[in-house]
Amino acid sequence: MNRAALLDALRAAVGSSQVLAGGDLSAWELDWRKRWRGKALAVVRPGSTAEVAAVVQACAAHGASLVPQGGNTGLVGGGVPDDSGTQVLLSLTRMNRVRALDAANLTLTVDAGCVLQTLQQTAADAGLLLPLSLAAEGSCTIGGNLATNAGGTQVLRYGNARELCLGLEVVTADGEVWNGLAGLRKDNTGYDLRDLFIGSEGTLGIITAATLKLHPQPAASLTALAACADLKQCVALLALSQSRLASGLTGFEVMGDFALALVRRHFPHLPQPLAASPWTVLLEFADSEGVDSARARFEALLEAALEQALISDAAVAESIAQSAALWHLRESIPLAQSEEGLNVKHDIALPVSAIPEFVEHTDAALRAAYPGIRLVNFGHLGDGNLHYNVQAPEGTPAGEFLGAHEHGINRIVYDAVQAHAGSFSAEHGIGALKRDELAERKSPVALKLMRAIKQALDPQNRMNPGRVL
Amino acid sequence: MNRAALLDALRAAVGSSQVLAGGDLSAWELDWRKRWRGKALAVVRPGSTAEVAAVVQACAAHGASLVPQGGNTGLVGGGVPDDSGTQVLLSLTRMNRVRALDAANLTLTVDAGCVLQTLQQTAADAGLLLPLSLAAEGSCTIGGNLATNAGGTQVLRYGNARELCLGLEVVTADGEVWNGLAGLRKDNTGYDLRDLFIGSEGTLGIITAATLKLHPQPAASLTALAACADLKQCVALLALSQSRLASGLTGFEVMGDFALALVRRHFPHLPQPLAASPWTVLLEFADSEGVDSARARFEALLEAALEQALISDAAVAESIAQSAALWHLRESIPLAQSEEGLNVKHDIALPVSAIPEFVEHTDAALRAAYPGIRLVNFGHLGDGNLHYNVQAPEGTPAGEFLGAHEHGINRIVYDAVQAHAGSFSAEHGIGALKRDELAERKSPVALKLMRAIKQALDPQNRMNPGRVL
Repeated sequence: MNRAALLDALRAAVGSSQVLAGGDLSAWELDWRKRWRGKALAVVRPGSTAEVAAVVQACAAHGASLVPQGGNTGLVGGGVPDDSGTQVLLSLTRMNRVRALDAANLTLTVDAGCVLQTLQQTAADAGLLLPLSLAAEGSCTIGGNLATNAGGTQVLRYGNARELCLGLEVVTADGEVWNGLAGLRKDNTGYDLRDLFIGSEGTLGIITAATLKLHPQPAASLTALAACADLKQCVALLALSQSRLASGLTGFEVMGDFALALVRRHFPHLPQPLAASPWTVLLEFADSEGVDSARARFEALLEAALEQALISDAAVAESIAQSAALWHLRESIPLAQSEEGLNVKHDIALPVSAIPEFVEHTDAALRAAYPGIRLVNFGHLGDGNLHYNVQAPEGTPAGEFLGAHEHGINRIVYDAVQAHAGSFSAEHGIGALKRDELAERKSPVALKLMRAIKQALDPQNRMNPGRVL
Repeated sequence: MNRAALLDALRAAVGSSQVLAGGDLSAWELDWRKRWRGKALAVVRPGSTAEVAAVVQACAAHGASLVPQGGNTGLVGGGVPDDSGTQVLLSLTRMNRVRALDAANLTLTVDAGCVLQTLQQTAADAGLLLPLSLAAEGSCTIGGNLATNAGGTQVLRYGNARELCLGLEVVTADGEVWNGLAGLRKDNTGYDLRDLFIGSEGTLGIITAATLKLHPQPAASLTALAACADLKQCVALLALSQSRLASGLTGFEVMGDFALALVRRHFPHLPQPLAASPWTVLLEFADSEGVDSARARFEALLEAALEQALISDAAVAESIAQSAALWHLRESIPLAQSEEGLNVKHDIALPVSAIPEFVEHTDAALRAAYPGIRLVNFGHLGDGNLHYNVQAPEGTPAGEFLGAHEHGINRIVYDAVQAHAGSFSAEHGIGALKRDELAERKSPVALKLMRAIKQALDPQNRMNPGRVL
């Protein structure tokens, strides 16, 4: 590779000021969890789809590979360069234009580099809802959300990023632009290229724009906490809630007692309205009618759950501020975990029906193998998605303990996931972190199909190499 | 190809009695609209996934190509053999086992050859809803529904077949079995193979089983008709309905005056509760609370629409029988068209916001080019999906007129669809019928990507060749 010639070609593609090849590039080279630090040949910041295509062509001509990056909030090391100093880091953040909002069609067409929260606000300003919502929404980009098929807190009602996307614009490995920005609910003209690029983590092409589905804003939204004695009760409460509230049930989060105990320990000022119980469920109900109807239906559900002895206690938020406080409690769990010390995180999915047995089995297996180990279990039960995390035994140096046992812990957890027909990556993707896991655990037939597709669409392996496959 | 050796291999794969190589095979060789008649080397009826794999391997060994078929209800000639007498017709209808119903996970895992209506009933028997619903449901199979990404009448609320599927089992072109039957709402472990096979019309592999999403059954479902003066009012009524009823709005069908006039002419016994108006909308509302609440909300919506002068009249069905009669009216339009004579059908999708202008423009262009032409316009307005059909001028021999003008009519319609960012195949697929249309109208970049994928997964072009691409 002729580095100087490539840099010249990149400068010709996007302008000299948008090619950063010296100085502190850690904003792009280091992931936000500080687990991966790479070294880019250059950081390139195109301002348009045509410039992205020109960058891909320049890299092709000079034999360089590309790592696309949005808000750099990924959790699996999929968006930072490797340490070879030969990869071009393509940052999409300058591409942040809202291209069109079509209220009658309930669609929003935007550049890939738009920040998710900005788009939520754009929709809200038009009286509509963009229901993708996750912790990093203040800095993640919609292109990254789609490249990783992001999930979040409203998947139960509205689906993952995939289900919220009607069309894409993509720059292919050949440096060509595929304009698939249709705003259509039905379109059966050939293979589903859209969903192939969604979730492919930049390894098949670079998403430069998307047409998103919008929804009407609910008339009222209410939040409640409920206390359950075991996970079977949580699953039964989910079924009752779905049957009574149907798609009005927009959130169903579960929090284990130790997860909330960590929040009490590290954030004692946060109110916890219910007494400690083995499991606390956060329910959210969005109603299209109004707040009175919403409250009546929500309270009737919780009364029925009390009568059926599925819950032992419940509290409905009385205000938007109280609702926000309940969500804040839920969202404080990962922060409390960090305060408590290093830990191993798992982002797993299971059939909802398998969760009680999975947790009982896996808790026991981990406790037998690692006496004193502490399990922080919480997540999107309505989607079958648990953040099943592991904290070192109290008083043990966490770094040392995890250094010695992380691999063994992962093996116990992922073996159990596999035995229960689950997924070892529910919403965070594969990236660099779980590539070996994928190679080991995905069926050989699926891997063969994936490799054939990668080879077909990126035969030179220039698009985010070393990720996913 | 050694025909005798291939037949021997097929008999070894599935048993002699399930290889039909003589006699009247028109049940498989002729499509139900009687537009395509082919000649199969043999009809093979495997009873298990392993047998499907064995058939694919036998065909590979002997250089034969395969045409998979479900209920043979497709509309685009995608499921019948060509007339070469060299293709193996693989009928999935013997694979009709329900493998598992997991009520707590809201999933149903079934063989590909199960009839859709049977599965709707299976779900209903468990107190749950499988919301895929379309005219052919009494004989189409779920494998065919998925291979063509079928739509139907409840897409507005529940999505296409794609959105109702969580996992697939597929026999690949290599004769291997990919078991992707996960019942997970979140699974980001690699490329989205599921959605690639869905809608690929048997050209990439053979779907042998699927895990489907179920939903809670609504507590009450109500249907109404409303009269609109023009399509802009219909679109405004849709927005009002979505805003007030949110996901409770499960159906929003539009019927043009001439479409209903044909029903009056050929089925005079069918009641039409509203006086003739330029457009009649059929609305369906499913409520999770109960029939009283449903009726109150539905009537409030229609009153608001009357006040806002979006509609001039409305009638809410008073019983399940009346609801069924309203749907029957809508479903009688294609039959009335057949009674009236040969016609040209278009299954198109547009951004909802573009529909009024599209129809005004295209009606005028067709009437200018073909004086006296009669337009039968109806469809799933909520999905942007119109069945925009064309009947010969009154009194003109239809066969002659269409023989001379079908191509010209299609060109005007599809050019207008393209100009309005629409799709020339919303829910029926490509098959043989629209292959040339796809080659002409899809972007060259998309076609290049599709061909690369086809080449990667089926390099010998043995899977349903000549369809889609």
